[in-house]
Amino acid sequence: MADSGLLIVVSGPSGAGKGTICDALRKQFPNIHYSISMTTRKPRQGEVDGVNYYFASKDKFESLLEQDAFLEHAKVYDHYYGTPKDYVYRLLGEGKHVMLEIDIQGAMQVKEKYPQGVFIYIVPPSKEVLEKRLRGRHTDTDDVIAGRLAKARAELDWIAQYDYVIVNDDLDKAVHAAASILEAEQCRAARNTQCIANIKSMYQ
Amino acid sequence: MADSGLLIVVSGPSGAGKGTICDALRKQFPNIHYSISMTTRKPRQGEVDGVNYYFASKDKFESLLEQDAFLEHAKVYDHYYGTPKDYVYRLLGEGKHVMLEIDIQGAMQVKEKYPQGVFIYIVPPSKEVLEKRLRGRHTDTDDVIAGRLAKARAELDWIAQYDYVIVNDDLDKAVHAAASILEAEQCRAARNTQCIANIKSMYQ
Repeated sequence: MADSGLLIVVSGPSGAGKGTICDALRKQFPNIHYSISMTTRKPRQGEVDGVNYYFASKDKFESLLEQDAFLEHAKVYDHYYGTPKDYVYRLLGEGKHVMLEIDIQGAMQVKEKYPQGVFIYIVPPSKEVLEKRLRGRHTDTDDVIAGRLAKARAELDWIAQYDYVIVNDDLDKAVHAAASILEAEQCRAARNTQCIANIKSMYQ
Repeated sequence: MADSGLLIVVSGPSGAGKGTICDALRKQFPNIHYSISMTTRKPRQGEVDGVNYYFASKDKFESLLEQDAFLEHAKVYDHYYGTPKDYVYRLLGEGKHVMLEIDIQGAMQVKEKYPQGVFIYIVPPSKEVLEKRLRGRHTDTDDVIAGRLAKARAELDWIAQYDYVIVNDDLDKAVHAAASILEAEQCRAARNTQCIANIKSMYQ
């Protein structure tokens, strides 16, 4: 039993298969919880406060920002989005894993505040595969797809900032790799100081 | 495909189950090779040079020592034992994993020379379990067992120097943990610079 749960940060270009891999991981590890973001945008129909998001006023959000209450945050189209520290830290303290599926900018903010997180980058095996996946969705225009490909290319420079890289050319293998990373990280000596102390005490 | 194979260093007290776990790992990863030690002791009946050991004269060994040709070495009862660097590095360069099952003193020497190795400590769940395993072998006297238990206790202070700790209270789980560590380490971003460069070039 590790000292605390794992904060798992997953990034990768749109079309890399992050969502599918994260969902598969959650099935294998019932102990994984998704983080709940706080946002200043209005709830959409059916969205529940504390389930889909924590909804907050702009004043409230900015006051929390001043208190350094977020692991990461961003402003998108005049609305704030952020990951509240206290919610995440409470889960981790209970030994639960927390998974954040966020972009590189967010991940780098988390890394600064919580370097012991597990940072995983999912990458498609090639531009061709990524383009095929994006076209297969039938949701994006050619311009949007071209933009996503250019962004994916630019983001490759950031992979070295992550602990792990998973090339998703085969979904089962990618999920197996991600699951192995979580199993391995739970065995890190630095995460098991309490367990080691317990064993020591049993040798007295 | 990672930049090179993994150098896997496994330590743990006598009776922790190192050998059983390492053998199980080798079955799962045919790419794992055991290192071959060099020694100055005489070959025993049936031992083959280059298979069981590299046999060398004391002069030869000491000359290699001066050339810093060993990853680790020790002198036991007037005989030298050492792990030749060039043999290990050649295998790693070919993408093969090399496994060293060595004591803490040896592991710490390796860590200094090859910090990118994967250092795993196998620990029995308690003194009682270790004692039971040692007695179950019917090979050691009470004095020897008492000595092994005291040594195991003293060595627990060194676990923090290892990357990973596996508590072997269930062999299948311990093997699964060890296998996960190898899978995960193969995904380390720092070990996949070539793979990342290849993907980058495909996005041009």
